[in-house]
Amino acid sequence: MAGYGFMGAAHSHAWRTAPHFFRLPRAPQMTAIAGRDTDAVRKAAEELGWDSAETGWRRLIERPDIDLVDICTPGDTHAEIAIAALQAGKHVLCEKPLANSVAEAESMAVAAEQAAARGVFAMCGYSYRRTPALALAKRLVEQGRLGVIRQVRAQYLQDWLSDENGPMTWRLDKSKAGSGALGDIGAHIIDAAQWIVGQEITGVSALMETFVAERPISGELVGLGGHGDVSHDTPRGAVTVDDAVIFSARFARGPIGVFEATRFALGRKNAMRLEVNGSAGSLAFDYEDMNYLKVYDQGDEAQTRGFHRIMVTEPEHPYASHWWPTGHGLGYEHGFTHQVVDLVEAIADGRQPTPSFADALQVQRVLSAVEASAGDDSRWTALA
Amino acid sequence: MAGYGFMGAAHSHAWRTAPHFFRLPRAPQMTAIAGRDTDAVRKAAEELGWDSAETGWRRLIERPDIDLVDICTPGDTHAEIAIAALQAGKHVLCEKPLANSVAEAESMAVAAEQAAARGVFAMCGYSYRRTPALALAKRLVEQGRLGVIRQVRAQYLQDWLSDENGPMTWRLDKSKAGSGALGDIGAHIIDAAQWIVGQEITGVSALMETFVAERPISGELVGLGGHGDVSHDTPRGAVTVDDAVIFSARFARGPIGVFEATRFALGRKNAMRLEVNGSAGSLAFDYEDMNYLKVYDQGDEAQTRGFHRIMVTEPEHPYASHWWPTGHGLGYEHGFTHQVVDLVEAIADGRQPTPSFADALQVQRVLSAVEASAGDDSRWTALA
Amino acid sequence: MAGYGFMGAAHSHAWRTAPHFFRLPRAPQMTAIAGRDTDAVRKAAEELGWDSAETGWRRLIERPDIDLVDICTPGDTHAEIAIAALQAGKHVLCEKPLANSVAEAESMAVAAEQAAARGVFAMCGYSYRRTPALALAKRLVEQGRLGVIRQVRAQYLQDWLSDENGPMTWRLDKSKAGSGALGDIGAHIIDAAQWIVGQEITGVSALMETFVAERPISGELVGLGGHGDVSHDTPRGAVTVDDAVIFSARFARGPIGVFEATRFALGRKNAMRLEVNGSAGSLAFDYEDMNYLKVYDQGDEAQTRGFHRIMVTEPEHPYASHWWPTGHGLGYEHGFTHQVVDLVEAIADGRQPTPSFADALQVQRVLSAVEASAGDDSRWTALA
Amino acid sequence: MAGYGFMGAAHSHAWRTAPHFFRLPRAPQMTAIAGRDTDAVRKAAEELGWDSAETGWRRLIERPDIDLVDICTPGDTHAEIAIAALQAGKHVLCEKPLANSVAEAESMAVAAEQAAARGVFAMCGYSYRRTPALALAKRLVEQGRLGVIRQVRAQYLQDWLSDENGPMTWRLDKSKAGSGALGDIGAHIIDAAQWIVGQEITGVSALMETFVAERPISGELVGLGGHGDVSHDTPRGAVTVDDAVIFSARFARGPIGVFEATRFALGRKNAMRLEVNGSAGSLAFDYEDMNYLKVYDQGDEAQTRGFHRIMVTEPEHPYASHWWPTGHGLGYEHGFTHQVVDLVEAIADGRQPTPSFADALQVQRVLSAVEASAGDDSRWTALA
Repeated sequence: MAGYGFMGAAHSHAWRTAPHFFRLPRAPQMTAIAGRDTDAVRKAAEELGWDSAETGWRRLIERPDIDLVDICTPGDTHAEIAIAALQAGKHVLCEKPLANSVAEAESMAVAAEQAAARGVFAMCGYSYRRTPALALAKRLVEQGRLGVIRQVRAQYLQDWLSDENGPMTWRLDKSKAGSGALGDIGAHIIDAAQWIVGQEITGVSALMETFVAERPISGELVGLGGHGDVSHDTPRGAVTVDDAVIFSARFARGPIGVFEATRFALGRKNAMRLEVNGSAGSLAFDYEDMNYLKVYDQGDEAQTRGFHRIMVTEPEHPYASHWWPTGHGLGYEHGFTHQVVDLVEAIADGRQPTPSFADALQVQRVLSAVEASAGDDSRWTALA
Repeated sequence: MAGYGFMGAAHSHAWRTAPHFFRLPRAPQMTAIAGRDTDAVRKAAEELGWDSAETGWRRLIERPDIDLVDICTPGDTHAEIAIAALQAGKHVLCEKPLANSVAEAESMAVAAEQAAARGVFAMCGYSYRRTPALALAKRLVEQGRLGVIRQVRAQYLQDWLSDENGPMTWRLDKSKAGSGALGDIGAHIIDAAQWIVGQEITGVSALMETFVAERPISGELVGLGGHGDVSHDTPRGAVTVDDAVIFSARFARGPIGVFEATRFALGRKNAMRLEVNGSAGSLAFDYEDMNYLKVYDQGDEAQTRGFHRIMVTEPEHPYASHWWPTGHGLGYEHGFTHQVVDLVEAIADGRQPTPSFADALQVQRVLSAVEASAGDDSRWTALA
Repeated sequence: MAGYGFMGAAHSHAWRTAPHFFRLPRAPQMTAIAGRDTDAVRKAAEELGWDSAETGWRRLIERPDIDLVDICTPGDTHAEIAIAALQAGKHVLCEKPLANSVAEAESMAVAAEQAAARGVFAMCGYSYRRTPALALAKRLVEQGRLGVIRQVRAQYLQDWLSDENGPMTWRLDKSKAGSGALGDIGAHIIDAAQWIVGQEITGVSALMETFVAERPISGELVGLGGHGDVSHDTPRGAVTVDDAVIFSARFARGPIGVFEATRFALGRKNAMRLEVNGSAGSLAFDYEDMNYLKVYDQGDEAQTRGFHRIMVTEPEHPYASHWWPTGHGLGYEHGFTHQVVDLVEAIADGRQPTPSFADALQVQRVLSAVEASAGDDSRWTALA
Repeated sequence: MAGYGFMGAAHSHAWRTAPHFFRLPRAPQMTAIAGRDTDAVRKAAEELGWDSAETGWRRLIERPDIDLVDICTPGDTHAEIAIAALQAGKHVLCEKPLANSVAEAESMAVAAEQAAARGVFAMCGYSYRRTPALALAKRLVEQGRLGVIRQVRAQYLQDWLSDENGPMTWRLDKSKAGSGALGDIGAHIIDAAQWIVGQEITGVSALMETFVAERPISGELVGLGGHGDVSHDTPRGAVTVDDAVIFSARFARGPIGVFEATRFALGRKNAMRLEVNGSAGSLAFDYEDMNYLKVYDQGDEAQTRGFHRIMVTEPEHPYASHWWPTGHGLGYEHGFTHQVVDLVEAIADGRQPTPSFADALQVQRVLSAVEASAGDDSRWTALA
């Protein structure tokens, strides 16, 4: 594994945990973790449960005892690592968003396609697909239970930037992060919506906004304390990414959608919400109640028609039978564990795991069209 | 009162009921109801509790014993009736939307301004302002409890057109209805959002969609039964209005907003939803739970911070002390009763009631800009 | 109508409103209202919309132009008024609980039975039966949708006595009120549970508690202000009724139930909650969300099984088609309006309206058994 | 660890996971797992991640490289294993309920007290105490935020026995399981209520019920298939435990409580619900929404008073800062991980971990009083 931040912890937990709850066709070995700082990566290896530590991701690619590289580094490094790993014959799991530009994403998709021809596979880490309630949503749409899909409304609401004196970070610097709410959380709802509806977005009209243009440069850099101490003299850095983005979209075979991603929705902590309306039914999901899917079935008898609040922990539900008795909820990390399970099974079967790099490239194209439209008076922008 | 459809019933109930629960400065007399069909209007007078029936609205304006005209007719007649009534020195309550075009609305606003100078007042019936929970929302924003407002998300979701074999009606004919979801329900969330935020919308980017282009012409007209009998031979009429509309907006002093109105959100019956995020708090409302307002207060102690689910039936809440003990919910018609109370009190005080025709004209301008943007590739459209 | 407190207002609204929304077989005339204080009853007549005022309820019985007496006075007067009215050939609607003792209730039931033989009918005002969601619950149980009923859990939670400095009132004096939470709100859940399950309670085991034994005698009586001014010197009166009651019960054909009524559940304003579990399904209701019924149907497909959240405002639902379009909620007073409708229809048809005095007597017997058990170490107490 | 059923899996996951998210003072080694069947225990060791397998729990006590014994076997074996382990100087974590009788529990508490004097500690696995939302509830009561506690209502509702043709199992045989819903799930709400309120239950009045008296003996034993095949000829075994139990209770310093545990509440999967009302506030919890605590604070401003829906994933909340960013929910197994953390920290500090065997013995006494009351006409039964 390359990288050991928040995502590194989630991925490590998944690799450690998957074999104890699922019968995997191959037994994962947590061989090595790599990072730039020798001491830090050693410490991470110990804490996260890896057998060895390497300085620099290239060592992972050189080692013959490594079959798969799990990329949890920032987005600007994804392309280089992933392409090198694939070319070296190693399977790749790469965190989302796939890259910071469409061009990078395209080269990654090409590399992935070439590797797949040799039986070497790449997958992008849109882990929310593995939330049981969303996997059930996907299944119900595939079964035709919603009829013809007409509308999608998707929101990803967080609030961690609401405080205007919150510190400047690399995530707010476009040169490093690519974009703000759009790529970080907007990418998730784009991927989830396209995947569940089973159709690609073909065009968008967008509005992007930065509410707080400058933020105090954090104490660690300039010798100040917490943002309680922020004063008019505190040096401030320019926020160069979007705080919030709104866009409308059309899908390939008719549905329209409305999307919003923001880090300023005070009180919403991780409200990834998705509603889909079809001609025969509807579904609604909110990640803040991640164990539930709400489903409306027009086929129900009229007097008892209403959204079913389904606790997605039954043996009939995706992934659920491997865990606890019915009604005992799952948490955030289970999506990562399921992701590892699906990846290992696909590799063992010689099948392409999903989302492929090509799927993730499509998300990247939507992100790019959103930025283009927002920069052009919200004009309708078809996907390239 | 002119008109006796669904709105006529709601308004009549309000005039009948208000004096029994509120101490009004003037006692309303339900003098006369007018309509085109002599027999039908007589029947309506009896059912709805009016003292007399008149054929044609002009009779209301001629009668000296009438001080106020309540207009519940379709939108294409509003301008003529309202202007005539105001010029005849009668106060006016006019259902929303104010008119079917900006031009008509402008002439109505001019007439209202002239009448007001003579102590004759006009008000537009955006009755949702009188829902206690929304009135509380307005008050909290005015008190500064949300800090600087940053974002608004507003939805009005219904589902009564989901069935593609539902019949053609005048509401789906642009020449009569002006627009579809936009003017019917979109107008409500535009008015509510501007009123609660206390800022006008200055520009929009919009997408409009008609999912079902043709509908069977109803049995009453062509001798067929219910839409269970619809066949390929059933004559169909063209739907010329929007089934759904999505738009983004900017408000005068900084906030951005996202709006959606649809009649195709299967399972949502009357989901007028409004969320407002500020720098110090947030609020959320859903008309399907109309007695509740949810409020998040960043000033709460960290360990117990969370949306307060406020049942808006306490003596401290708008309108509530006039009704039942705490916790005994109110319903849809109470908004109309409160509207009558506020109107009568303003007239008695010689104050302009709100929303004024000028306020309602502003909503009309937003509707018009939405249509213009949707017809121009979603391009950003500033309000005239 | 006799009495003009909170219940008088609700009943008057119902009599005024019913004919405008329902096609009644007979047109109610609001002939006269009676009370002890001549001035107060005149004022009430005007505010509530009655044609005349009478001093003393006996005048209602003497007047030949009165066909029905609606009794909204305190419980200790019910028996005398109701029996006199029935014997005088007047139909009776009597507020709940039927009486303050089983003996009084028995004599009322006898009078009602005798009157019914002459086509004169009596009904007790357990108005919650007319809440559409609860009427739907009753219908579903009757249709067998829940299978064999096994369990009932019923709560009626209010909080208006939580403040220990809240004033002493007649409601807390056993000699006037009969009992506390038990008769006031406990009676409602007993009636609703027996009615919906369709079985009588046959025995109980109970615990009653008074949390605040003494309360300040209110300022109006002793010249003090609001309870902000309560001091150690404030005279206090003894609370002689229950603040809260808990009991378990058995129903005639097998189900068990658990009941709780309290005025000390801080934050619960009018939480009349009912859950019923059967072998084929369950239902759940909370009056604080009175427009909804939640239904679980074991017959649903396994993957989408979950409580349906039914908004009980569809044409297929009890009473709903007479009001607003789907999704537009009803409020507390609608139950009273429906009660009047059902009563007038039953009288016009020559049918016994329900709940009859015999039904209400059965509730009284349960109340009595609860008190007996609570006074005897919670020992199981069969109904007499 | 002794035992490797469902609880064994949960405990193993906790031991594996705790060191990766918490900085433990001692590093747990998963030395050995024991069971009766040599092959099965070997397989379990591999699946669950234990270094070695032993046939029979006595081997764990003999091994000098084992410091702590984690008991996940059925209740009738707890006393023997725990006492032997403690006497051998090994710390003990024992699953709940502590034992199948008060007598056994008493001997365990004595052994634990003697061991504690030597620095060897015992803890009982009431893991729900480690759910962050319930730990927050406990903290709020301790801080006095609810004022004087007056009422507790606790329910534990499941539905896995609703189908009357569900098979007979050892859990329905009193000789093996001790009791039914009472000991299995009722014990959890008794422990949680006493712990959060900070007071012991002093007396109870109870009703117990068995709805299905006989069940088919499962196919595995008698050569039949699933219960789809159940016929009148299928051999049936007697259910000798309670399907549901209801009881009222008094706590030491004044509060009253109402408790219900059932396996027949169709649609409720794991609804462990707890509500506490005090003089200054209330709290409500439902395990089916385990990441939330609802808190009502009478000290809030009147116009915005309402239950706070707190998502218990903030850094200020118990345990939460060790996991994911705010708003990313936790699941069932986290309680077990936290239990291990608290246990290891207490041992390292030489402190008694809680709940102690003495705490668990108190729960046992309540269970015993409930059974006694239910067997004696629900008569009030003080705790021994």
